[in-house]
Amino acid sequence: MAVNFPSIDPASLHPVPGVTLGWAEANLRKPNRKDVLVIAVDDGATVSGVFTTNRFCAAPVTVCREHLALARGGAAPIRALLVNTGNANAGTGEPGLAHARDSCAELARLLRIDAQQVLPFSTGVILEPLPIERLKAGLPQAVAQLAPAHWYEAAQAIMTTDTLPKVASRQLDIDGHTVTLTGISKGAGMIKPDMATMLGFVATDAAITQPVLDTLVKDVADQSFNCITVDGDTSTNDSFIVVASARSTLPVITSTQSAAYRALRDALTQLAQTLAQLIVRDGEGATKFMTVRVEAGRSVDECRQVAYAIGHSPLVKTAFYACDPNLGRLLAAIGYAGIADLDVSRIELYLDDVLVAKAGGRHPDYREEDGQRVMKQSEITIRVCLARGDAQATLWTCDLSHDYVSINADYRS
Amino acid sequence: MAVNFPSIDPASLHPVPGVTLGWAEANLRKPNRKDVLVIAVDDGATVSGVFTTNRFCAAPVTVCREHLALARGGAAPIRALLVNTGNANAGTGEPGLAHARDSCAELARLLRIDAQQVLPFSTGVILEPLPIERLKAGLPQAVAQLAPAHWYEAAQAIMTTDTLPKVASRQLDIDGHTVTLTGISKGAGMIKPDMATMLGFVATDAAITQPVLDTLVKDVADQSFNCITVDGDTSTNDSFIVVASARSTLPVITSTQSAAYRALRDALTQLAQTLAQLIVRDGEGATKFMTVRVEAGRSVDECRQVAYAIGHSPLVKTAFYACDPNLGRLLAAIGYAGIADLDVSRIELYLDDVLVAKAGGRHPDYREEDGQRVMKQSEITIRVCLARGDAQATLWTCDLSHDYVSINADYRS
Repeated sequence: MAVNFPSIDPASLHPVPGVTLGWAEANLRKPNRKDVLVIAVDDGATVSGVFTTNRFCAAPVTVCREHLALARGGAAPIRALLVNTGNANAGTGEPGLAHARDSCAELARLLRIDAQQVLPFSTGVILEPLPIERLKAGLPQAVAQLAPAHWYEAAQAIMTTDTLPKVASRQLDIDGHTVTLTGISKGAGMIKPDMATMLGFVATDAAITQPVLDTLVKDVADQSFNCITVDGDTSTNDSFIVVASARSTLPVITSTQSAAYRALRDALTQLAQTLAQLIVRDGEGATKFMTVRVEAGRSVDECRQVAYAIGHSPLVKTAFYACDPNLGRLLAAIGYAGIADLDVSRIELYLDDVLVAKAGGRHPDYREEDGQRVMKQSEITIRVCLARGDAQATLWTCDLSHDYVSINADYRS
Repeated sequence: MAVNFPSIDPASLHPVPGVTLGWAEANLRKPNRKDVLVIAVDDGATVSGVFTTNRFCAAPVTVCREHLALARGGAAPIRALLVNTGNANAGTGEPGLAHARDSCAELARLLRIDAQQVLPFSTGVILEPLPIERLKAGLPQAVAQLAPAHWYEAAQAIMTTDTLPKVASRQLDIDGHTVTLTGISKGAGMIKPDMATMLGFVATDAAITQPVLDTLVKDVADQSFNCITVDGDTSTNDSFIVVASARSTLPVITSTQSAAYRALRDALTQLAQTLAQLIVRDGEGATKFMTVRVEAGRSVDECRQVAYAIGHSPLVKTAFYACDPNLGRLLAAIGYAGIADLDVSRIELYLDDVLVAKAGGRHPDYREEDGQRVMKQSEITIRVCLARGDAQATLWTCDLSHDYVSINADYRS
């Protein structure tokens, strides 16, 4: 059961001019579910993305990188995204690469573009061959359904262990021009994006040059999808893609120094954070949504190190599941985070507004009932003040419950 | 339920001349259980230890380091170990340090030695004040029970979430002299020793000079307690201590280059590995004992990095709990272990004798039923060949089950 997942009205989602979406039920792993998504992009758009750092990256990730490099190098621009669920096409060696290329070629044939203009994405079980013939057989259905209003169905089509479709949309005004941002994401387990299987696709109708879009995607990913973890397992297939369709009346954004860039970046960051947080809210077995904020560190990296130590600790996560303020587990995680010269006597630990620990131990005013009160909430902020600098980092994560074990002990069967 | 835990006959444990053990029921957290242990060491012994690297190390760890430094500096030698369960005396600031010192002073008074000749150890809940008065009140009972034959009861006295006492003993012949080795350990959760709450105490009657013993303890810890993980949480209280009582007829060991040193080191390593593996076999909720062996790496460090990525992955651990050969999760963990230039096309992955993956993907001869057969065993070896060097490392770990969540969601209540 997802944690405070907002209800989404499909009618509230803004179509992005220049972008159409269509799905198919291709029977890739289970019958009667949407498992193929095509996103088609009109000519004139720019596309950029960031991908998993996992060395066993999936075949489609390799092909995406190749095709994006070709597009950046001036060859034909990206015109379509092809996503399948039910199979990750990872740990599949050379045959997996051939399947990824074959799927691009088939979609390209249907859309009358080149294979290198297609970016392929897969999510599902690793180490099993992609059912390429069934995938290809589903493409005509997907292409026939292409339409601008299909964002909600697109979010459904990329779900695996997700219990709810993840989609967000907004419009903003930049310099008197309306700009639209709409995106979808998926993911619930194997989530520790180090841009998990986490997929995020956002489109805007703004016009953005390729180098500026490349910077924008990295900036936004670092402030959104790279700030979440469910189980600490970085997937083989993580991908975050931004499509800029260039249909807005806003003049093309050519510099990261412009006011329009900053306005778009801030709006896109907010939208991507929403999509990333939806993944955590729907984290496998999650019953609580936790924000881990580490402040006053010497560097963002060390703040993130402490935040991840907390976010990945099974003992911390089970204590939150139990609503048990066994908060010494938080101190233990801070202590083993790997900061060799950390002075623990200076650290302050807060649970929401409750000061728990200070001067190396439990704060004298801390009362168990205050901790208990916060632990019973479904949304909790853990705040750690390192008192050694000005850097800070935020991580969004969830608890570890019986359902996480059930979901992952039964996933394939 | 522990995994293939050997049955231990208390009568088979060899007393170590010069070492006596006594316990008390001090009611520190729960009534009617042994929760205080005193190990007394006759004059003439050397003692060494290694401790947690957690920056939030417990007050007794700090005091142990001080007292061992004093002993090494030529002050009075260590003559007693004092262990309590039910409370970790960690995250307790200055009052915690005062409590640890106070407990040493009280035991010293009863044994007519100096406070600095006592090493204190605590394990249990973090961030709560040590019930020092109850602990002190239990000491006369423990001292009154001191006897050489109490190793089994000593192992019981240091249990927390452990379901079984952990003890091992052996005698060997070195150069015609009989040498005895007997030790105890505890730990089941918060186990990723980077010396978890893991305590290990081993005594031998060999005579070993202090510098040689210091080297011996580090060598042995690196090959035993530092090769296990249950949940990746490095405790605030981990300690591994070796007492050399110097009562054997074997001449004093003064060099790490001697045949006697190597014989003792090998025997001690084997004993410590047994004690460390008992912790994993009794890991919280464990249903399987897994050996992760990473071979042909460039360095021991990178082999350990890959082994820990596998051993800590909740997805890998739940798949093993389910007996589900969802082995792509192993590839994902290898891929995100952090070896930037890892060539995944050269990696081989074996489950016991079954070759699962090769050339970046599933081996053509791999059959799911072979993987399934191995997954159903209670003891499994995961072997990864990195094919890039001569280094290797072994890690012992367990699966992640519903019981792990239950145990840790309910631990304090």
